Amino acid sequence: MSPHSKLQVPAGYQFGTASAHIKYPNRKDVGFIVSNNPAACAAVFTQNRFCAAPVIFSREMLENSAGIISGVVVNSGCANAATGEQGMQNAATMAHVASESIGHGGAFLVCSTGTIGVQLPMEKLEPGIVAAAEARGEDARDFIDFADSIMTTDTVRKVASATLDIDGKTVTIAGCAKGSGMIYPNMATLLAFVITDADIEAHALQELFQRVNDRTLNCITVDGDTSTNDTAIILANGAAQASVAPGSDAFVAFERALTDVMTSLARQLARDGEGASHLVQITVKGAASFAEARTAAMAVANSPLVKTAIYGKDANWGRIACALGNSGVAFDAAMTDISLGDLTMMRDGVPLVFSEERALEILGEEEIHITADLKAGDGTATVWTCDFTEKYVEINGAYRT
Amino acid sequence: MSPHSKLQVPAGYQFGTASAHIKYPNRKDVGFIVSNNPAACAAVFTQNRFCAAPVIFSREMLENSAGIISGVVVNSGCANAATGEQGMQNAATMAHVASESIGHGGAFLVCSTGTIGVQLPMEKLEPGIVAAAEARGEDARDFIDFADSIMTTDTVRKVASATLDIDGKTVTIAGCAKGSGMIYPNMATLLAFVITDADIEAHALQELFQRVNDRTLNCITVDGDTSTNDTAIILANGAAQASVAPGSDAFVAFERALTDVMTSLARQLARDGEGASHLVQITVKGAASFAEARTAAMAVANSPLVKTAIYGKDANWGRIACALGNSGVAFDAAMTDISLGDLTMMRDGVPLVFSEERALEILGEEEIHITADLKAGDGTATVWTCDFTEKYVEINGAYRT
Repeated sequence: MSPHSKLQVPAGYQFGTASAHIKYPNRKDVGFIVSNNPAACAAVFTQNRFCAAPVIFSREMLENSAGIISGVVVNSGCANAATGEQGMQNAATMAHVASESIGHGGAFLVCSTGTIGVQLPMEKLEPGIVAAAEARGEDARDFIDFADSIMTTDTVRKVASATLDIDGKTVTIAGCAKGSGMIYPNMATLLAFVITDADIEAHALQELFQRVNDRTLNCITVDGDTSTNDTAIILANGAAQASVAPGSDAFVAFERALTDVMTSLARQLARDGEGASHLVQITVKGAASFAEARTAAMAVANSPLVKTAIYGKDANWGRIACALGNSGVAFDAAMTDISLGDLTMMRDGVPLVFSEERALEILGEEEIHITADLKAGDGTATVWTCDFTEKYVEINGAYRT
Repeated sequence: MSPHSKLQVPAGYQFGTASAHIKYPNRKDVGFIVSNNPAACAAVFTQNRFCAAPVIFSREMLENSAGIISGVVVNSGCANAATGEQGMQNAATMAHVASESIGHGGAFLVCSTGTIGVQLPMEKLEPGIVAAAEARGEDARDFIDFADSIMTTDTVRKVASATLDIDGKTVTIAGCAKGSGMIYPNMATLLAFVITDADIEAHALQELFQRVNDRTLNCITVDGDTSTNDTAIILANGAAQASVAPGSDAFVAFERALTDVMTSLARQLARDGEGASHLVQITVKGAASFAEARTAAMAVANSPLVKTAIYGKDANWGRIACALGNSGVAFDAAMTDISLGDLTMMRDGVPLVFSEERALEILGEEEIHITADLKAGDGTATVWTCDFTEKYVEINGAYRT
């Protein structure tokens, strides 16, 4: 896993950004990623029934293009959500202007993030997309500019990359994401973009991306709200001339590297949750399945009582037990183990005496690990969240300005 | 609905309280309700898998006694949860001591609320129960003392009563509850006790109580956590000599009065949620069923974004739409209406221009009404919650002392 300073970007992509002054003057708020040749593409979208125009547009475009996409154009500052027919037309115009301004055309996906219920200022956005196209470049620096252009209330940039060797060829995977958790003061969005120069067929890519997404981005929560605009997209343009076919060793290695990149993004997103002071990693073992393990772990991750206890450095394991018992997942309370870091607090459903001093030490660290063993099967899941602080209430309770 | 100063209590019950010094010195922390004759009894208990010893004991006792119960004994300060075999024995001892100390015996149910993972101090609690039995009385004042003895972090007492005429006889229903929402700093409990002098058969009472509970206490939330000890119990001792048989007009009138009492308790509980500054009432209309309407309304009620917006007096209806869209309930986003008080903010899925001034006025009131119409069926549900403030984080983030 490369740290930011050594971020690698795959071959055959260009990145452009510009200021369209949508919400704030003088910050980058429009960006695109374009592949030099049409790339295999996979994506996952929000399940929210109030999904935004760019989500509806991109889902249809991906289907109509049989998974072959030239690029993605993104704006921040306006979510283009709850905007009716006009919003759909504006999403289509964004894609059209991006495709035309790049020169070689092809299908573009569209993402928007920001305020809901407001139409996109197309008179600013269209020249912004053209300016971003003119300013495009292929370096890591350009990719980082793109990562910055999609941020809203994020306090830090989220990028990650990995390289692997496939048949003597170097394959690179780079990703970026935005989201101060899942959600924002104005109900915004998680967006994640992953690009690679590996050569993968679109259907296999969709299946792989869903599986990896299910164990990475779908395993984070800040407050249990899923936005109207959530979108994660991967492009694979084959520029490294290394084939990644399902069933091959290369596929296994690629899945591992992709999981690394997306796990890094997931952790960065959870850590930057609104008002957060800790990254919290929750692992549930011994559930009947991965899905049950994730449900149980998410019940802990979404419990305001657990999250405030961690903020308050309170080793109040009873709240973890309560959240597990409340998750709807099948297990025997009398067999359950619960640990905080290396301290076991409950074994076989019975409270243990533990060192409060050691517990305070563990809760003083920036990253907190909670583990529960339900002893009801082989399912294991790890999820990430942050703690819950007064700052969260302050950020989200502030009157709109 | 009687205000507190005019609280009525039904005939044929006595109430006793005492200080057993379980957690705090010199406050009432043990109480019981006893019926002069064995009463028909119904109850609902927490669904949490880590349910506490008194819940397990009471559920079995109710079944073994075929729904005929003499009384209930309750302590605050210790939840008797996660206490293993010893906890089960202590719950049984509480019931036994209560039954013996009353003189005429009979089956008792048991409730506990307070800290988890700690054994009950039986050497204090047993004489406390005996002292409470000696101090018992039958007046409204005694019932209010009982309501006070079960409080933990509640900031106000929750009581309600109603009277109705059945065949020329006055039937009284009185209820009390505790719970600063569903939950407490040490993961405690919602307890509710309802008593009546109507004459109802135990099975009919159980069915009625579950139905009414489903639309009252099961329609409140503070933070979506359900505790290990939640219990609601109703006793009907027939002392008013008025028969309430299923299918009769009296039954309909009784159900309405019981709903009034339990709705009052539900609203009082939600209003006293930890750190709350508003009571929030959310009504979802036009869902496919009551269950779907409640699920959708609860998604709004549990959304930290909606709750912080209300705290911040922010008419951010997009967060309400987001929570509805996220609830898993079936409806067409393009047909949805959303209102705040008398202001419609979204009609047929399209944002309306509304007076921010009027919205600020509505959000300045102590009680806030949100209404959504999904236009997907005839199901309607109303739920109650409170807003989400820095105070909640402060209360729950405080280190245990």
